[in-house]
Amino acid sequence: MSNIQETIYQMGRQARAAAHQLAQLTTEEKNVILRAMANAIRRNASALIDANRLDLANGSEKGLSTAMLDRLMLDAQRIETMAAGIDQVATLPDPVGQILESWEQPNGIRIEQVRVPIGTIGIIYESRPNVTADAAVLCFKTGNATILRGGSEAIHSNRAIAAALAEAGAPENSIQLIPFTDRESVAVLAGMDQWLDLIIPRGGKGLIETVVSLARMPVIKHYDGICHLFTDVDADQEMAVSLTVNAKTHKPGVCNALETLLVHRDVAATFLPKVAAALEAKGVELRGCEKTCTILTNINLASEEDWRTEYLDLILAIKVVDSFEDAVVHINHYGSHHTDVIVTRNEFTAERFLRVIDSACVFHNVSTRFADGGEFGFGAEIGISTDKLHARGPMGLRELTSYQYRVRGDGQIRT
Amino acid sequence: MSNIQETIYQMGRQARAAAHQLAQLTTEEKNVILRAMANAIRRNASALIDANRLDLANGSEKGLSTAMLDRLMLDAQRIETMAAGIDQVATLPDPVGQILESWEQPNGIRIEQVRVPIGTIGIIYESRPNVTADAAVLCFKTGNATILRGGSEAIHSNRAIAAALAEAGAPENSIQLIPFTDRESVAVLAGMDQWLDLIIPRGGKGLIETVVSLARMPVIKHYDGICHLFTDVDADQEMAVSLTVNAKTHKPGVCNALETLLVHRDVAATFLPKVAAALEAKGVELRGCEKTCTILTNINLASEEDWRTEYLDLILAIKVVDSFEDAVVHINHYGSHHTDVIVTRNEFTAERFLRVIDSACVFHNVSTRFADGGEFGFGAEIGISTDKLHARGPMGLRELTSYQYRVRGDGQIRT
Repeated sequence: MSNIQETIYQMGRQARAAAHQLAQLTTEEKNVILRAMANAIRRNASALIDANRLDLANGSEKGLSTAMLDRLMLDAQRIETMAAGIDQVATLPDPVGQILESWEQPNGIRIEQVRVPIGTIGIIYESRPNVTADAAVLCFKTGNATILRGGSEAIHSNRAIAAALAEAGAPENSIQLIPFTDRESVAVLAGMDQWLDLIIPRGGKGLIETVVSLARMPVIKHYDGICHLFTDVDADQEMAVSLTVNAKTHKPGVCNALETLLVHRDVAATFLPKVAAALEAKGVELRGCEKTCTILTNINLASEEDWRTEYLDLILAIKVVDSFEDAVVHINHYGSHHTDVIVTRNEFTAERFLRVIDSACVFHNVSTRFADGGEFGFGAEIGISTDKLHARGPMGLRELTSYQYRVRGDGQIRT
Repeated sequence: MSNIQETIYQMGRQARAAAHQLAQLTTEEKNVILRAMANAIRRNASALIDANRLDLANGSEKGLSTAMLDRLMLDAQRIETMAAGIDQVATLPDPVGQILESWEQPNGIRIEQVRVPIGTIGIIYESRPNVTADAAVLCFKTGNATILRGGSEAIHSNRAIAAALAEAGAPENSIQLIPFTDRESVAVLAGMDQWLDLIIPRGGKGLIETVVSLARMPVIKHYDGICHLFTDVDADQEMAVSLTVNAKTHKPGVCNALETLLVHRDVAATFLPKVAAALEAKGVELRGCEKTCTILTNINLASEEDWRTEYLDLILAIKVVDSFEDAVVHINHYGSHHTDVIVTRNEFTAERFLRVIDSACVFHNVSTRFADGGEFGFGAEIGISTDKLHARGPMGLRELTSYQYRVRGDGQIRT
């Protein structure tokens, strides 16, 4: 057994033991510790900034892009945001212990389905050091022990954050940071299903793919958002322009940004020039299907690849469809089942759309940007799941819990 | 691409298309088809028996054990049981379409969390041909398309059952049986996460391990049941004897049978002789820890391996523990987190046990044999999950569904 494997297995055993302790904490005990974590982050702000400077220096040397270095950077304001985020998690309702259902069987046994922590959760993430705190405290609030494996670019920052969190009096090993940043540590973590109940990769498609192919335990994936907006024949066109512009340009680099606009052919001639003008005024590059290009003659032709692309940039693919059915087929085929919108004044068409689109979030007359745990009122978000099992769409605290059946009787036997 | 891969990929594409159709069926439409499936099974009884004879003949030739041949065998009664099971599924409430929660945000968007089918489900199973019908109809009732991959021993029976089900007028490709029974077909199925949303292996540990190591999509595992019963210092000893005998001997070959008895040291001297006499009268072989063997001097010493063994037979491991805490540590360490019982008259001790045992089912004064979808009142059971994600413990129809968020607004944008 390699040194890496030995160390991580030991962390796994420790996480399991910590999880059993965490599951027994009361909500108030957890909240006291969370507030102490927030204060420990504040108290250690200068140590965090010093550690982060090392990462930034190494990053510059390695030639990281300005955008990457910005994601890596911690300053006083970002550290306060991190601490305030932890305080905020302390104020959220605790799902653990909630009785989901209870009933009595004719033989007198009384069955209760109760929310409990999942147990132990591995988080594998890339450059942003704030994930160390964000993910760990959400897991802690729900009584789960975490093993974190961050990227090499942020290793000093991650260590400093983990050290600060450890000052808050949580049960030992509640939050553990893997000291290695090589590939083997991902493989070891993903393979130890005896100690890890769930693994959540937070990062790009390559990272998620790697974890999926290695993992023996459940993985909750946050894949691409190839989100669509369909402007129906009965759309309020002003609303469709407003929603399209908001969904595409409000924050183009996130998974709930719009990537493909579908337009019913009967309104294409009137709608496309209006939406194109509004989008181009915001600097959006348009790529259209053949029909689109006969109306918007100044834009480039979209390729097959465009329908499958999450641009995360000020680029929008546009396709004219012959019917509602064609829009549905396009979305279910090319989409990533994340978030899709119909704009229409026809309630009947809208309800059909909501029923037939196979996506985590299906919206009527609402911007794709509302596909978000905060906007849904969850108070906190660990991510947006593109899986269908356990958690789908925006994931809050509830999605970090499991349940167990507690059954009480007075000697019932089966005959 | 091999022929096997090509065929199974094509089935995957077809399953996805079928799933989109199935998701749109009403409950009544599904129930009509289910009753037609039951009748098709009855109508084809003699064809089923003929096909089954081929499997039995091949099995005899290959030297299958009597028990294996019995699991494989179909007769008029078993076929009627299969048909009646399908009729029964038709009477169950349909979870699809159920609104789990709905609320409105301050900005006026109205959010609904609605149960929807998972989509496409792969079932990999071993010798029992009735799984072909049982699993497929539960998936069908919940609007899911299935791809079945049965064992080679039952291939003729499985084909005949699938052919009968196909006469019932379900959307094309709702239920597909893979025509191959070799290893490659398992690997191909487990690898095609673009078309399969979930895979459920139904069979022994070896099969489950294989699927877990190959699968790229979520797997719901039904691993061992190493179930414990703890006779507390405050137990009603007559009740503890009755529950132990029932849990061990009522049906020893199933996952909710008792495998290890834990006894508080302060009652060991009085309780052990009583329970041993009752168990030995039922032909149960006992294996004890050192302390147990000083009281029950005629039994063999248990080895470390015994605490980790699912006997599925008339054998019981017995351990004397020094305290409640020692019982908990033993169960959480050696158990399989399936079903564990405390027998006690002390309500406080019982509630502690229910809270600290990390198992799908935790029982107070109830036989382990009640860990069962039927006994829980679910009406049908696809299995008992030893996973913590998505489904834990007995799985009914609800656990074969996912959900989606349907959001309605009037032009809301994020600012």
